[in-house]
Amino acid sequence: MRISELVERTGVPLATLKFYLREGMLMPGEAVSATRAEYGEEHVRRVALIRALSDVAGLPLQRVTTVLGLIDSPTGSLFESLGTAVAALPPYADDETPDAGGPAADAPEFPRAHAAITALGQVYDPHFAAVAQLERALAGVETAGIPMTPDRLEVYGTHVRAMAEFDLERMPGTGREAQLGYAVLGTALYEPVIAALRRLAHQDIAARRLTEDAGMPVAPE
Amino acid sequence: MRISELVERTGVPLATLKFYLREGMLMPGEAVSATRAEYGEEHVRRVALIRALSDVAGLPLQRVTTVLGLIDSPTGSLFESLGTAVAALPPYADDETPDAGGPAADAPEFPRAHAAITALGQVYDPHFAAVAQLERALAGVETAGIPMTPDRLEVYGTHVRAMAEFDLERMPGTGREAQLGYAVLGTALYEPVIAALRRLAHQDIAARRLTEDAGMPVAPE
Repeated sequence: MRISELVERTGVPLATLKFYLREGMLMPGEAVSATRAEYGEEHVRRVALIRALSDVAGLPLQRVTTVLGLIDSPTGSLFESLGTAVAALPPYADDETPDAGGPAADAPEFPRAHAAITALGQVYDPHFAAVAQLERALAGVETAGIPMTPDRLEVYGTHVRAMAEFDLERMPGTGREAQLGYAVLGTALYEPVIAALRRLAHQDIAARRLTEDAGMPVAPE
Repeated sequence: MRISELVERTGVPLATLKFYLREGMLMPGEAVSATRAEYGEEHVRRVALIRALSDVAGLPLQRVTTVLGLIDSPTGSLFESLGTAVAALPPYADDETPDAGGPAADAPEFPRAHAAITALGQVYDPHFAAVAQLERALAGVETAGIPMTPDRLEVYGTHVRAMAEFDLERMPGTGREAQLGYAVLGTALYEPVIAALRRLAHQDIAARRLTEDAGMPVAPE
């Protein structure tokens, strides 16, 4: 298809597509003449991925480029690529670089996260961005006077793991682009789903426990 | 204690405490002379709550005031107060007001959220902020090409509910200030904990499935 058709198919303006091409985020079409290139379904899919990463997941452009670079680079195992791709997601610590790695001696100490992950019996890469993220989150609940306790960790760890198992089972079996797209988008975009479901479960449970008319939908008068 | 001692006990500067007093966020001390007021443990607790809501949970000042107002106002049931207090938390929709309520005819349609909550067999208040939040989150995953499916909803719903049950069980049994503080802070501050735990569970499961050396901690070379 011509680029004008790609505009139509994706709903993305021509100027934006040209920007993606210039930045190397979108692979060039096949040149069929000096002034015309032909685009295919892989271009439609790539544009959809770029839009989902930037507009829906809210990744800054630099992080979108990181994820796309991982998809296009044949180096590294799928496991390594997954870790680096998910590390491109917010929240970003002030001193964090998108490229995790480096010698272990450089790793900051994350005592709360280390204790929690160890208690859950999980393996982890101390450079993985989620370790620092967990440390900050655990420090936050501590400061607020509702610190993580062993029983809460066990409950949360068990149920979060069950959800994560489901997520991994549904990861596409083949295709690095599809697998990494699923991992990054599924991680970023299902976090708000889970947060909203938790708030709604709180409301449902509180309604059943704290109000008399427990069988009826709760609605304001 | 004098206000200088309150500064020392809470670590909050005098100018900030005076601001809280002026804004009515902190209740006045007991006047013991024309120029001196006496403060107690309830002031220490209140300052800690204000700091946790603003600094740790990141609520804007207006939302902190909403939560404090609910704590101080004796009207409304605990259930109603919990809903309004949690509605003071981010994320904020553009057209959202902190005060949920009003006639049902004003409620926008939330078809995805309605279908999901109904499928989970939960009761809900259509004006509760988390309904709109769930709708936006479900629209996001749909746009990104990984829409919510009945099996994913069942898995997530079951496990999120188990965590929410634990949360409610641990809510303080008495004291409106303690209960609402727990609900708001526990909701806001455990969301990033859960998100980080999920990312780490993904890594652990992926490490066991995708790498050969599954028994060993994963570390960069």
